[in-house]
Amino acid sequence: MVKQAKITLVGAGPGDVELITLKAIKALNAADVVLYDALVSEALLEYAPADAIKVYVGKRSGDHTYSQDAINKLMVDYAVNYGHVVRLKGGDPFVFGRGFEELEYAAANNIEATVIPGVSSSISVPELQHIPVTHRGLSESFWVVTGTTAKGELSADIYDAARSKATVVILMGLHKLDEITEVFKTEGKQHLPVAVIQSGSTADEKVAIGKVDTIVDIVKENNISSPALLVFGEVVSLHPDFKNTKEFYDAVATK
Amino acid sequence: MVKQAKITLVGAGPGDVELITLKAIKALNAADVVLYDALVSEALLEYAPADAIKVYVGKRSGDHTYSQDAINKLMVDYAVNYGHVVRLKGGDPFVFGRGFEELEYAAANNIEATVIPGVSSSISVPELQHIPVTHRGLSESFWVVTGTTAKGELSADIYDAARSKATVVILMGLHKLDEITEVFKTEGKQHLPVAVIQSGSTADEKVAIGKVDTIVDIVKENNISSPALLVFGEVVSLHPDFKNTKEFYDAVATK
Repeated sequence: MVKQAKITLVGAGPGDVELITLKAIKALNAADVVLYDALVSEALLEYAPADAIKVYVGKRSGDHTYSQDAINKLMVDYAVNYGHVVRLKGGDPFVFGRGFEELEYAAANNIEATVIPGVSSSISVPELQHIPVTHRGLSESFWVVTGTTAKGELSADIYDAARSKATVVILMGLHKLDEITEVFKTEGKQHLPVAVIQSGSTADEKVAIGKVDTIVDIVKENNISSPALLVFGEVVSLHPDFKNTKEFYDAVATK
Repeated sequence: MVKQAKITLVGAGPGDVELITLKAIKALNAADVVLYDALVSEALLEYAPADAIKVYVGKRSGDHTYSQDAINKLMVDYAVNYGHVVRLKGGDPFVFGRGFEELEYAAANNIEATVIPGVSSSISVPELQHIPVTHRGLSESFWVVTGTTAKGELSADIYDAARSKATVVILMGLHKLDEITEVFKTEGKQHLPVAVIQSGSTADEKVAIGKVDTIVDIVKENNISSPALLVFGEVVSLHPDFKNTKEFYDAVATK
């Protein structure tokens, strides 16, 4: 007997397996199939029944990859044939996750589909480094931009963001850090504090703290690699590493 | 015997009690004291031990209120006298939550303090209405702004955000909706889709969907009240109510 076809998009959070929601765990408990992404910890699959089908559909440069079309089709095929598909995605499904496209595809195939929000890396990864995206006196807003658009170019929104007073958080932008810092320099912001955080919330977490005109070198010195998130804004000055560096230079300057 | 003083800032998520993280539940399990805000469901207090002290420190217009200073002091006093204080805040502690100020105050008093990110309303409340803050072809970024600054004025960032191509999410802005729509009109965006969502993710959830030049009336007709979140952007056109309205007008226009 085939069960009722159903798709639940689930946000797995930034990486720390305890930053998943209770609602996500309940969905996994009731899954017949789990389709999971590259940035999702396999430990989370333990919440699904032992006999549930678990399929890795990671999309990551260098890996064997599934196209979005292939994932959409897999998702619907599994739902039709096995019942409840949990589509487990890193962070939040609607933050550059193409989650809405998956909802639309399910709807076009007359399959009931819902979404369970997750803790987004865009806010939580800086937060776990004690960098608040908003802070009285320093920032009244934050702007989250992708470093990699569909066309592989720098998003036009980065130019506008660099001009703004918002805290600017850039996801998937490490490989374009050079280009992005040039955009901020063009706006006269070479001294704006910047943080680059690799694998936030996991055991591989690494951080580089600097300014627009120094961050490229600091990232190289610290061997920071993808996945990484960039934060441009005065709020980065609240990070202890920034304060220490500043005190060091102030001390040198007054000698 | 007095336990080790410790403070954990915890994000409770947007309102749905199942949108709390496992890590937050574990912190509550280990709490000696819970200080909780107005937008936090009291059902979450059940995760704290029965003999833990639970204190409501809600800051909401009209209620008896605690100032931020008073909350900071309470937090530290309880930690010194009772041990582990969980400071339970709606949404995410670092999104207009003044969470960093609480961390700083704890540090200034030599009390160990950590933060557990929560599901932010800014992303999840639109998401639960199936409005993605980003979507290929419609939006490459989203900008989250407060409608109420420390001075009670409209944030200067709203003027810049209205000019941008980002999806603009405004928290605590319902009482300034008139003023905010005027800002978007000045930018020639009277036809930009807008959603206003009250009490997102809870049983009291209500939504109004319209355009910059119609949303004020639609909000009144639907008796939308605070707390509410505003979304300005083409992504709102993906909401079923927007599509239905558009089809209705298109049908009328072709008659």
